[in-house]
Amino acid sequence: MTFRVGLLGHGTVGSAFHELLEERAGRIEAATGQRPEVSGVLTRSRGDFDDIVERSDLIVELIGGVEPARDYILRAMAAGRHVVTANKAVLSQHGEEIYDAARKAVVQLRFEAAVGGVVPVIRVIHETLAAAHIERVHGIVNGTTNFILTEMAATGASYEEALEQAQALGYAEADPTEDVSGRDAAAKMAIIGRLAFNLPVHLDQVPYEGIEHLTPGDIEYARELGLSLKLVGTAERLDGGISVRVHPTFLYGAHPLASVNGSFNAVTIESPAITEITLSGPGAGGSQTASAVLGDVISAIIPPPTVPPPAEEQPFVTDTESAFYLHLEVADRPGVLAQIAEILGLQGVSVKSVVQKGLGDDARLDMVLHTSSAGWSSSGRLRAGYG
Amino acid sequence: MTFRVGLLGHGTVGSAFHELLEERAGRIEAATGQRPEVSGVLTRSRGDFDDIVERSDLIVELIGGVEPARDYILRAMAAGRHVVTANKAVLSQHGEEIYDAARKAVVQLRFEAAVGGVVPVIRVIHETLAAAHIERVHGIVNGTTNFILTEMAATGASYEEALEQAQALGYAEADPTEDVSGRDAAAKMAIIGRLAFNLPVHLDQVPYEGIEHLTPGDIEYARELGLSLKLVGTAERLDGGISVRVHPTFLYGAHPLASVNGSFNAVTIESPAITEITLSGPGAGGSQTASAVLGDVISAIIPPPTVPPPAEEQPFVTDTESAFYLHLEVADRPGVLAQIAEILGLQGVSVKSVVQKGLGDDARLDMVLHTSSAGWSSSGRLRAGYG
Repeated sequence: MTFRVGLLGHGTVGSAFHELLEERAGRIEAATGQRPEVSGVLTRSRGDFDDIVERSDLIVELIGGVEPARDYILRAMAAGRHVVTANKAVLSQHGEEIYDAARKAVVQLRFEAAVGGVVPVIRVIHETLAAAHIERVHGIVNGTTNFILTEMAATGASYEEALEQAQALGYAEADPTEDVSGRDAAAKMAIIGRLAFNLPVHLDQVPYEGIEHLTPGDIEYARELGLSLKLVGTAERLDGGISVRVHPTFLYGAHPLASVNGSFNAVTIESPAITEITLSGPGAGGSQTASAVLGDVISAIIPPPTVPPPAEEQPFVTDTESAFYLHLEVADRPGVLAQIAEILGLQGVSVKSVVQKGLGDDARLDMVLHTSSAGWSSSGRLRAGYG
Repeated sequence: MTFRVGLLGHGTVGSAFHELLEERAGRIEAATGQRPEVSGVLTRSRGDFDDIVERSDLIVELIGGVEPARDYILRAMAAGRHVVTANKAVLSQHGEEIYDAARKAVVQLRFEAAVGGVVPVIRVIHETLAAAHIERVHGIVNGTTNFILTEMAATGASYEEALEQAQALGYAEADPTEDVSGRDAAAKMAIIGRLAFNLPVHLDQVPYEGIEHLTPGDIEYARELGLSLKLVGTAERLDGGISVRVHPTFLYGAHPLASVNGSFNAVTIESPAITEITLSGPGAGGSQTASAVLGDVISAIIPPPTVPPPAEEQPFVTDTESAFYLHLEVADRPGVLAQIAEILGLQGVSVKSVVQKGLGDDARLDMVLHTSSAGWSSSGRLRAGYG
């Protein structure tokens, strides 16, 4: 059976989604009994919206921005089509209208890709924490700014230099205002706040402050205070109400978001019953967003499994390769390390790094070896790293 | 309407679940239209299994161990009841039998709480990554051993001392064998491997090695090599087959699992389309596990929402308290800091920490202030930490 997906928008994410869907169609058919196929594509220059809706079971909206996206989403739902979107602008500004319309039309509206890249914030709030009282959500929800701050911290670069670097690598757009001003993060936090607390949050109600005014000195000195500087979005219950906001924030070193670096996104959800859950993963890149969109499309086709599907058979591999850790206590005499290296070399094992410490007449050697196929060993030697 | 939950087992998790369900029943009823209530409890000394099944829509199995849990799960499903369980022992050893029985009986079988505490590994694999090709899963899935290794690394304590500490705090049982031998982690990795790769994985096929033989020296020397020592479970595709295993592993410092400390659990799922997702949260404690079980119960009552529910109204709070960061460039003369502190003091603001650096005739002062109610400021000053 075919499941017809109408695609609005064919930019970076749209074309990545189109490609991914075609690549995975066979596997999705095997799992769900329905083969998704793109029944039509609307771009500025080709396709007719009404015609595409007519020929689709579900509409994927990847145009972005408020109009005409809002109009298309409402019309598709009114025509009885499920909608999957990655559009944070429209949901943070017209969310209630769109959610109401979806309930009225009795269609599904899924938008995991609108928030936090591939990090499944919405599912976790809606499902895992369905029974929990959520107290607070902190998020690094903009990969561009996190990349810039990470660069500044790592290299001492100025904001302008780090931004240029981000643009060169495709992490920032030619006009980066939406990201660096904090507005993109504010839109995402508005959507998260809506879901976490079940109350309407409009982008206009979310004060935000960006990273344009930060200097390497701010980061450097903060480090001396044991703090790490991030653009953090917060949605929290406070004094009988709620607060949703975005601003640069110093995090103490052990905070789960303090070590989220580069273009990654991460969200920490706090609830008394569970303490906290942290989810992290790549921020919105074309293929990551496409993957989140496809996850939503599949969930719309069939409800998530409530029992694991029948298993396939596949061989077990027991002879795994590892880099091993080797600890030796030896006499502290010249030539000992050379002898050991020679013995290892004769066995075809090479040394990646070594620490030697004298202990009176004895010495202790700790080495990490290069990857070797050693099979499963229970000799108490430890595997190191992942190659 | 009432949704009747039969509860098997009333130990730490069972009683925490019972309490949580009663506490949240009203809210769940508001959200789902059905009020869950415990229709019967089976313990060693009270309750009759058949009678409880008769009076329940869903059975929650929190007895643990293989028998009689396996028998009860199979009989409850054969009687047409949904089952929610936190039992990794029975699923890692009799998973295929139980999954087959659930499909045959057309009932739901949910077991998020069996793996990774409150971390929603199963949902993410089944739903978010439904379309993805999972290449590898790494997990710190045993809180006891991660607590012990964290203690050893932080204090230089021996394995025995750290274990005693874990026992005193309730993180380790009187007989810790199941945890410290790696067997508990192996059972969880067997379940995760089954779901990630859709092929049968039995606990017996998972080689494991524990942490009993580790010394503070191993951790200390590894640190000098830039590595961090964790008990890591791995499930991966390898040479056309799969490998599932558990052993102490050195992780390079930037690995997402390297900074997971204390009794926390975390899982990293790698897939080409998404790079990786990391999920972390508290390992299995009574209330955390109870929360995960309740999430499963709610999912069984009603499918997860496909549209956000109608919003409630709640006031926005704009006057949030924050600890602020203050950066001042001042003349490098005696008494300057004292003057500034006095001015801040007169405004009712106290200083938490300060870094002062001379720059020729000038000095730079960076301070973190104690929490004060400053309203929303867009003056470019940064908030610090979270109090």
